[in-house]
Amino acid sequence: MYSDKLRKLFDAGSIKIGDLIKVESGDLIFEGELMPKTEAGHEDAIVVKLKSGYNAGVMYGDGVRITKISSGKAVEFPLSNPKMAENLPKVSLLWTGGTIGSKIEYKTGGVHMTVKPEELFYYIPELPSIANIKFNQICEIASEDMSYHEWQKIAEETADALNEGARGVVITHGTDTMGFTASALAFMLQNLNAPVVLTGSQRSSDRGSSDAFLNLIAATNIAANSNVAEVGICMHASSSDDRMHLLRGVKARKMHTSRRDAFRPINDRPIAYVDMDGRISYVSEYKKTVKAAGKVTANTKFEPKTALLKVYPNSDPEIMQYYIDRGYRGFILEGTGLGHMPVSTEHPGKSWLPYIKNAIENGAVIGMTSQTLYGRVNANVYRNLRLLGNAGVVYCEDMLPETAYVKLGWLLGSHDNKAAKELLDKNIAGEITKRVNYDEFLV
Amino acid sequence: MYSDKLRKLFDAGSIKIGDLIKVESGDLIFEGELMPKTEAGHEDAIVVKLKSGYNAGVMYGDGVRITKISSGKAVEFPLSNPKMAENLPKVSLLWTGGTIGSKIEYKTGGVHMTVKPEELFYYIPELPSIANIKFNQICEIASEDMSYHEWQKIAEETADALNEGARGVVITHGTDTMGFTASALAFMLQNLNAPVVLTGSQRSSDRGSSDAFLNLIAATNIAANSNVAEVGICMHASSSDDRMHLLRGVKARKMHTSRRDAFRPINDRPIAYVDMDGRISYVSEYKKTVKAAGKVTANTKFEPKTALLKVYPNSDPEIMQYYIDRGYRGFILEGTGLGHMPVSTEHPGKSWLPYIKNAIENGAVIGMTSQTLYGRVNANVYRNLRLLGNAGVVYCEDMLPETAYVKLGWLLGSHDNKAAKELLDKNIAGEITKRVNYDEFLV
Repeated sequence: MYSDKLRKLFDAGSIKIGDLIKVESGDLIFEGELMPKTEAGHEDAIVVKLKSGYNAGVMYGDGVRITKISSGKAVEFPLSNPKMAENLPKVSLLWTGGTIGSKIEYKTGGVHMTVKPEELFYYIPELPSIANIKFNQICEIASEDMSYHEWQKIAEETADALNEGARGVVITHGTDTMGFTASALAFMLQNLNAPVVLTGSQRSSDRGSSDAFLNLIAATNIAANSNVAEVGICMHASSSDDRMHLLRGVKARKMHTSRRDAFRPINDRPIAYVDMDGRISYVSEYKKTVKAAGKVTANTKFEPKTALLKVYPNSDPEIMQYYIDRGYRGFILEGTGLGHMPVSTEHPGKSWLPYIKNAIENGAVIGMTSQTLYGRVNANVYRNLRLLGNAGVVYCEDMLPETAYVKLGWLLGSHDNKAAKELLDKNIAGEITKRVNYDEFLV
Repeated sequence: MYSDKLRKLFDAGSIKIGDLIKVESGDLIFEGELMPKTEAGHEDAIVVKLKSGYNAGVMYGDGVRITKISSGKAVEFPLSNPKMAENLPKVSLLWTGGTIGSKIEYKTGGVHMTVKPEELFYYIPELPSIANIKFNQICEIASEDMSYHEWQKIAEETADALNEGARGVVITHGTDTMGFTASALAFMLQNLNAPVVLTGSQRSSDRGSSDAFLNLIAATNIAANSNVAEVGICMHASSSDDRMHLLRGVKARKMHTSRRDAFRPINDRPIAYVDMDGRISYVSEYKKTVKAAGKVTANTKFEPKTALLKVYPNSDPEIMQYYIDRGYRGFILEGTGLGHMPVSTEHPGKSWLPYIKNAIENGAVIGMTSQTLYGRVNANVYRNLRLLGNAGVVYCEDMLPETAYVKLGWLLGSHDNKAAKELLDKNIAGEITKRVNYDEFLV
């Protein structure tokens, strides 16, 4: 809420949230809609939504003048869901929170990231014309707070939705850990025979430049109309609003803090593009739906005692022992280059080799990936890698470190260490490709 | 060395290393030069250098036939350095090991990554025509084994070389941690007034496709002829041999395990391109040399009790306490998205917030970066970030996690924690830029 001082000032001028106001501060003049104070904003910062769609914040103080231009329109939502067209494909929309919900939040003054279906369809009236949508808010959580507990819940709800007749599932999700959740679903959902599409937005939906609506429309199109039987991520392909892409969940990574086209395929190509008119163009191989494939099941067991460790110069290898002492069963190492780590004995206590050997003797499974992200680890080029390979480290091919982490935790959830180790470098859900193509670097 | 069995076989056929041989194994026939056994290779694997420049390995066993086609030419190195042209610019070449030295290694049968200057100039006869080169092998170490001890030595040798009259310095280095070393030098070298260029190779120099020679030639050109007063990395700009680029060391990252163009500028543009003829084209702003700038000094103090921690779903925040208990003074967190980490109290023991607060109460300096690599962290967008910002976490702008780690360790080497914290998000060597340009994503 705004400060007492500001609220008194607003009251004195009969200014309400949503009114068109003018804010003058020295040479600067802002005209726009008065917004509610943002959660992160200062209580004295007046937030104005400009005509461009962007928000401006002006710190209130001496010399700042506020004038009301006109009253805002009250937003009135329809009282109930719009009627869904029974003849359209059935799509289940699982809502988990994240930036995509934030416009609705401020308009209603509602709780962080909550959304009601009638509000959603008010803001995106295109959705009911694409699919017969069943809305289901299953949690309300920022992406960075997602854990395997939520992965399990989402997997179960997805399986239920598909077994109850949905032809596809759309899952809204915060973008930060969307790649992790997509990987978890790709491994957990067994006998998947339908599109499962995660989507979200990089720019909050109270900004003119928000990608929320187009991403959600494109994701719904894929769930309603594609024959992709994989877990994918659907986000902006470019930073202009011309097309979205569907990326294989196990091969997608958020590569930019803020750009709308932050999600990129790593060592992979997009599965498909979706244009503004909802047309889907398939551009690479993917698993296709087949008729009468039986029920989807969710094998959601996950071993939380799995760690992802980044290795770097001067890093302390003894942290492996810290985890071993706490009963950790699996490690994904994010090594340098082709999968290296310090093994020299020249700097006492800095070689990872004895700790790796000890962890393996303790039965732990250790997988090697690369912090370069692109490319493939390879134990056969250099001597230091041979040492690690001989010690029993599994080289995870062209798998992303994050995907390898989720995979190992999932494998250890329902296998003993030996069996999990055997499966770690075998492809299960498209996470390992035989060959990295030349045109898959930095696209 | 090859196995006894193979050596007997070679002796019986009068086959020596370097001879042209034919190896037949079932349907496969290889013709090429017999290579010495590689360090990492099996002692029964016959390594043949094909005409394509690539090596093939054939495991010796039943049905494998080896025939000598012709004797190889013995490689004879000149007995001493070629005479250097006194009129050319003086460049100091500091050799540290890495892939770039591996051709010389196999020809001489010498020790891993060692090189003698007469061998170097034999293989790259262009070098003495570019600069009056003083060769100095200062260590012999794989990139993954580099530590701050080597950073210190390289910084001191670089300062000495420049103060003794070199107009530029070239440093050969393994590629895996080249970005870390370049960052360390950028911070350690004070009053730098000359080009300091790290270079290396992604493909070992015994392969036809090696990038070693062109990279070293381009780096020498920059050291001899450019007016760049920064620490840079010079590697292939594209995977064809048409041009090399000079990247700002603090903004460069190895982004592919094996491609020759693996080094990319992150949130930055290249400083310059160097073409095959040695022409340097400057393409962005950089610090320029000035006349009579005085001596370079090396402030090499580094606090090894600095950690780089990657945060991910289900990650264990208690490891911060592990480091605090061991006297660690600084942490760089590699958060998600704009700089997030789990702070929800819903999953007991999984919020990082209490551990961060405790570390800060213990006086530790904590910097936030993003695992997206591209883009800028920002504490002002979401509520969870405000919690971290309020706790005293320093948001490291658009700095790479690896660069931020090196910077913090270096700051803590010669400052108390409070002063180091103040400097962490202030630009020192080009590691923080005010604005990320649109065309700096995935290039």
